[in-house]
Amino acid sequence: MQNNLLVAQSGGPTAAINAALTGILRAAKSSGKIDHIFGSHHGIEGVLNHELLNLDSLSEDPAALRDLFYTPASALGSCRYRLKESRQDQATYEKITETLRQNHITCFIYIGGNDSMDTVQKISSYFRENHVADIHIVGVPKTIDNDLMQTDHCPGFGSAAKFIATAFSELERDVSSYSVPGVLIVETMGRDTGWLTAAASLARLNNRNGGPDFIYLCERPFSVDDFIRDVRQRYEKTSKVIAAVSEGIRDQNGLYLSQQFQHDTEDSFGHRCIAGAGRVLEDLVRQEIGCKVRCIELNLLQRCASHIASQTDLTESYLLGQKAVQCALEGHSGEMTCLIRQGNDPYEIRYSSVPVSLAANKEKKIPNEWIAPQGNDVTDQMIDYLRPLIIGEVNVQYKNGMPVQSLL
Amino acid sequence: MQNNLLVAQSGGPTAAINAALTGILRAAKSSGKIDHIFGSHHGIEGVLNHELLNLDSLSEDPAALRDLFYTPASALGSCRYRLKESRQDQATYEKITETLRQNHITCFIYIGGNDSMDTVQKISSYFRENHVADIHIVGVPKTIDNDLMQTDHCPGFGSAAKFIATAFSELERDVSSYSVPGVLIVETMGRDTGWLTAAASLARLNNRNGGPDFIYLCERPFSVDDFIRDVRQRYEKTSKVIAAVSEGIRDQNGLYLSQQFQHDTEDSFGHRCIAGAGRVLEDLVRQEIGCKVRCIELNLLQRCASHIASQTDLTESYLLGQKAVQCALEGHSGEMTCLIRQGNDPYEIRYSSVPVSLAANKEKKIPNEWIAPQGNDVTDQMIDYLRPLIIGEVNVQYKNGMPVQSLL
Repeated sequence: MQNNLLVAQSGGPTAAINAALTGILRAAKSSGKIDHIFGSHHGIEGVLNHELLNLDSLSEDPAALRDLFYTPASALGSCRYRLKESRQDQATYEKITETLRQNHITCFIYIGGNDSMDTVQKISSYFRENHVADIHIVGVPKTIDNDLMQTDHCPGFGSAAKFIATAFSELERDVSSYSVPGVLIVETMGRDTGWLTAAASLARLNNRNGGPDFIYLCERPFSVDDFIRDVRQRYEKTSKVIAAVSEGIRDQNGLYLSQQFQHDTEDSFGHRCIAGAGRVLEDLVRQEIGCKVRCIELNLLQRCASHIASQTDLTESYLLGQKAVQCALEGHSGEMTCLIRQGNDPYEIRYSSVPVSLAANKEKKIPNEWIAPQGNDVTDQMIDYLRPLIIGEVNVQYKNGMPVQSLL
Repeated sequence: MQNNLLVAQSGGPTAAINAALTGILRAAKSSGKIDHIFGSHHGIEGVLNHELLNLDSLSEDPAALRDLFYTPASALGSCRYRLKESRQDQATYEKITETLRQNHITCFIYIGGNDSMDTVQKISSYFRENHVADIHIVGVPKTIDNDLMQTDHCPGFGSAAKFIATAFSELERDVSSYSVPGVLIVETMGRDTGWLTAAASLARLNNRNGGPDFIYLCERPFSVDDFIRDVRQRYEKTSKVIAAVSEGIRDQNGLYLSQQFQHDTEDSFGHRCIAGAGRVLEDLVRQEIGCKVRCIELNLLQRCASHIASQTDLTESYLLGQKAVQCALEGHSGEMTCLIRQGNDPYEIRYSSVPVSLAANKEKKIPNEWIAPQGNDVTDQMIDYLRPLIIGEVNVQYKNGMPVQSLL
């Protein structure tokens, strides 16, 4: 009887999800307990479509593993597939179980964010209820949004935070070089939590004036009046203002800015124009303050800019992958590996695991005391939390002047 | 009698303009012929406003020079000041001459792009016509747009190209990880020339499928019908399309896309909406093809992302700065230093200088034969030209997880 391991990646791309895959491949190989390693193409979809790739030779190729470690996005392909409850869709769960059994999978490692942990929870519950005791499913957290419960932080976040902090420090140099006054609004990802936006604050560590003047997070209701007052006052004082905003900022009624200010706007084809928060604020500043203003959306680069990934982040992701293999081999199932911070001075992490039910379908918001009382900045507690996560530069190889990537 | 040197920076920020400054400071110091070194605050404005900074101690501080070399934007501050003709505004030229003489400036080095070379030309013409023989003004080229004549390429361009090529390679990994079909449009800077957009082609060097599917440059009239046809055909075949477009693409009548398609569009404040090319194309693809589509503007980061600067670019910028000091000390004036490519295999550059009148107020477009006949791609000649310019990674120091920058 074989003991095979299956690994899948799911949810939004990050710079760290392939580092977790690398850790899983190495741990499976070195355990001596796994006969064959498979990768599912496009997350759980690969299991449903019988698209499993044999990763045995990859797991034995140090050079290929090295490139994989530093490659952004999901080398195995990702998905956004949400399983129905097993009561409503018994057939799908039977199919998953059958495919896993056909391939003698005894360890199934699923790397992903909130929705992916829901997949882990549902499958493990089904297994438990249906006495499938020979397949152990363990989740590995990953999301740039940093919004998973039960882990100090999430792999992928540190690298995104390092890109954002670096971008803010470089943008500050750029806008400071002109004598012309102006306002720069930088929109980061984060629809429901402000962790990524908060990372802009790190740009102040090397340059007291280097970070954003203001930081507006999803966790607080956004007041346009307060924003304009903040920016106007600072602009009158220093003539340069940089503001960081989460894409998901909403007013006290939960309305996005585009819903408040652009309800009648249509593009030339009659489509309703769903502008980003930054773009609406750019219009508002031009209208209300009448100064030069520019909006920048950091966009997809913040989740895939592996060339400026955090070594701390990639290492932690790698080790969380290894921990998951260990958990599954020890017979645990329905768990998610997690990071427990032991201290900041020195920064120390313990690798552990928790029941995935404690994390799935929950969302970790920024604690109230980490947000400045006025709601336009973060506190030192936030900076203490973020600071270690972006430490360390990646030793990625370059070819033709560009980072070498793994192309499975 | 003192021999002092003045250096100024002008025009748009780049990752390489401070490398030129570093080269100038080192050359001035090591020449043994310069008594004091001054920097003008905000380009020629600093001369007009008597804002000259003494840079003697900086020029003797290797650690500070090292940080300066890797710092984006203009450490001395930049400007966009256009001098009138000396016939129309004699007083300004007299003021410039007076300030320079008061400070015993005999070498005046001006780093900048097209407009800045106009400043060099005007001042040197004034000096010649008015027999000011004791002040030598020399220009050092720099512009991410790569549009200066008389130099093989421009410092700042290689670093921007490296950022763009890297971004495309990372974005390709990102969008490829999903099974969902879609179109990605990436808008680069370049209002009148397509050099930066062309750099996206380099992403194919490491991954045959890694670059953009199509590249649309300012040099060719842009046809919306041809664009939609290109994208539709590729989308139907591969279900993933990445297109690179210059911000400045125009139709055969010279109209920008926003002028063709958004003339009636207003934002919620009644402002005319001047959307970027990418955003208009995003709407068009959604309308005409009806698929998932996203537009990304690479925005200011492409000119200030020093963390991924090209070492080749920074080194060339440094040496062009040194060459300018040598020229001025040898008594040349009204010249611009330039790069002459000796060959690609191995890549070899000769440092020279030309009369600035041959470069100022001219614009180097992409040669016709470097653009694919269909106008939706570049040829191998373009790739051969671009390839060496992004080689080499910078050895920038990091502190707190972010690149260390010089803060003069």
